[in-house]
Amino acid sequence: MNQMIERVKTSSQKEKPSVDALGFGKYFSDYMFTMDYETEKGWHSPKITPYEPLVLDPSAMVFHYGQAVFEGLKAYRTDDGKALLFRPLKNIKRLNLSCERMSIPTLDEDLVMDAIHQLVELEKDWIPNGEGTSLYIRPFIIATEPYLGVRPSHSYKFMVILSPVGAYYSGQLNPVKIYVEDYYVRAVPGGVGHVKTSGNYAASLKAQNNAEELGFEQVLWLDAKEKKYIEEVGSMNIFFKINGEVITPKLNGSILSGITRDSVIELLKHWDVPVREERISLEDIFKAHANGDLEEVFGSGTAAVISPVGELKWGNESITVNDNKIGQLSFQIYDTITKIQLGRADDPFNWTFEV
Amino acid sequence: MNQMIERVKTSSQKEKPSVDALGFGKYFSDYMFTMDYETEKGWHSPKITPYEPLVLDPSAMVFHYGQAVFEGLKAYRTDDGKALLFRPLKNIKRLNLSCERMSIPTLDEDLVMDAIHQLVELEKDWIPNGEGTSLYIRPFIIATEPYLGVRPSHSYKFMVILSPVGAYYSGQLNPVKIYVEDYYVRAVPGGVGHVKTSGNYAASLKAQNNAEELGFEQVLWLDAKEKKYIEEVGSMNIFFKINGEVITPKLNGSILSGITRDSVIELLKHWDVPVREERISLEDIFKAHANGDLEEVFGSGTAAVISPVGELKWGNESITVNDNKIGQLSFQIYDTITKIQLGRADDPFNWTFEV
Repeated sequence: MNQMIERVKTSSQKEKPSVDALGFGKYFSDYMFTMDYETEKGWHSPKITPYEPLVLDPSAMVFHYGQAVFEGLKAYRTDDGKALLFRPLKNIKRLNLSCERMSIPTLDEDLVMDAIHQLVELEKDWIPNGEGTSLYIRPFIIATEPYLGVRPSHSYKFMVILSPVGAYYSGQLNPVKIYVEDYYVRAVPGGVGHVKTSGNYAASLKAQNNAEELGFEQVLWLDAKEKKYIEEVGSMNIFFKINGEVITPKLNGSILSGITRDSVIELLKHWDVPVREERISLEDIFKAHANGDLEEVFGSGTAAVISPVGELKWGNESITVNDNKIGQLSFQIYDTITKIQLGRADDPFNWTFEV
Repeated sequence: MNQMIERVKTSSQKEKPSVDALGFGKYFSDYMFTMDYETEKGWHSPKITPYEPLVLDPSAMVFHYGQAVFEGLKAYRTDDGKALLFRPLKNIKRLNLSCERMSIPTLDEDLVMDAIHQLVELEKDWIPNGEGTSLYIRPFIIATEPYLGVRPSHSYKFMVILSPVGAYYSGQLNPVKIYVEDYYVRAVPGGVGHVKTSGNYAASLKAQNNAEELGFEQVLWLDAKEKKYIEEVGSMNIFFKINGEVITPKLNGSILSGITRDSVIELLKHWDVPVREERISLEDIFKAHANGDLEEVFGSGTAAVISPVGELKWGNESITVNDNKIGQLSFQIYDTITKIQLGRADDPFNWTFEV
């Protein structure tokens, strides 16, 4: 049973930024959704209010013990002016999985769906118009109790904020250069790498910065135990096309269960392209390359959808994938998913959700 | 060269809670220290101001990507009314180590020392009077930039807040029951477990809660790779006395370098008690117990100083340490460190710092 979502009207609307100025996550729309939790009351007071600063005690637990989870999804504008969400229920379910791991009270899925729906509908004009642009939706939960003991917070705030974002690619999909990180690790089974909690991202910054300083765009993360098996690339999942077959690391408790990852797998199955989820050693990838069998490599994620990989550097070895050009299958996946997201292609999977 | 610390006077002072009501981290004093960072300006505007809420954009990076580090130390009131800090420079240096790992700009050590000194001096009346009480000092840094891209923030806030805290022990030091966690892990080498960043604590909550539900007070963390070697207990370091020798896990990149841990080691050396830092398997501890060689087990940390361990449960096996009573050496360490902290014993190590 849904709670009513209260609305507070804004007295002033912001000017919308030009498409060229957008970038990612810099601008925010006029409204936000908020809902509060206290142990005695549960989740309560869902509201859509003007976008405004949060006022928190300096001892609010999120600042000290990092109980925070989030999601990221996008609303797309179709050519005939409709607003489409891409698999929003997947994000909502994953948010609850993140809550469970991080000892945060879970949310009512229908209410969150309703909140996102109502907020995006209200802010439809904030979905930008340019090719490749979208309205990024960021649901998140933070621990708000003013208390310094180490235990789960007794109060939380759930929020949804919206940010118009520019095209990830300007022009064609340029393959990225990847640095294989073999000192720092992102996550380990038994930890929290399989959920979207804030600390995972903080933990990744140093290696990402090191890679950039060495002239690479992204880091390839290896497993924390043996530093042999492939986990993720940057904050994306990764796929390899070897000899006509596609493989991606199996979810093992330290890899994020990406929604684009899941969509790629479903799409490949639909196309009868062989696809397997399995433990993949980096050595096997380098061997496949040496044998001439490594055809394509790409990352998958909400921001880029598909990000082709052109180069992999591991210690002193470096390999170039597909002559540093986007692969045919990579492009086909990118093209199909983005067309479905924009309502330009059939949606046999019922992935899109009209606002 | 120190920057001047500006002061803003409060217009109203809070009533101080009674000693019995204190608990841990529930009450905060009248003033706080703040300092801001922007990429172009560096750390600037150090101030002591009235304790007041923080106002942050909902997109402030700390809420999303968890760039946050902290420290914890205490100010003690001596019998003749002086205020003593315990090894504050150690905390400040560790804060900077945490900053480096988490891609946060480091702080000027002298300025932080000055900030803590001035703040505690101003709030001296907030150091409670009761036996075992103290004024807990919480320095912390959070990422404040309103931006959703995953990269280090371009702005931060450093704060120091003060909380009067009650005695950890009411009466004698009761040994705790420990549950050996063999599914969830706290940290792994290459990760961030050796520094005080918020995400480590969020990641520990679920296992801690499970242990409490099973009737245990704390979790013993094992190494993430083999689940064989001992790391920490709860948020404390751990020591074992076996056959007259004391051993504690060697710092390996996933264990926090505790300041109480360091003090215990120095003290034991001073007393000519054999003490070693080495990799310790849980199996060896259980064997030592079976042989009758396991004499004492205790945790060390700022909150409790020393926390004796009375029981260890690992899967279906359970061992009782020293008849579930505090060991003689454990007590002697506790007694000596707390007396030094309170100015009741000589301080041959120059650990205390008078405010």
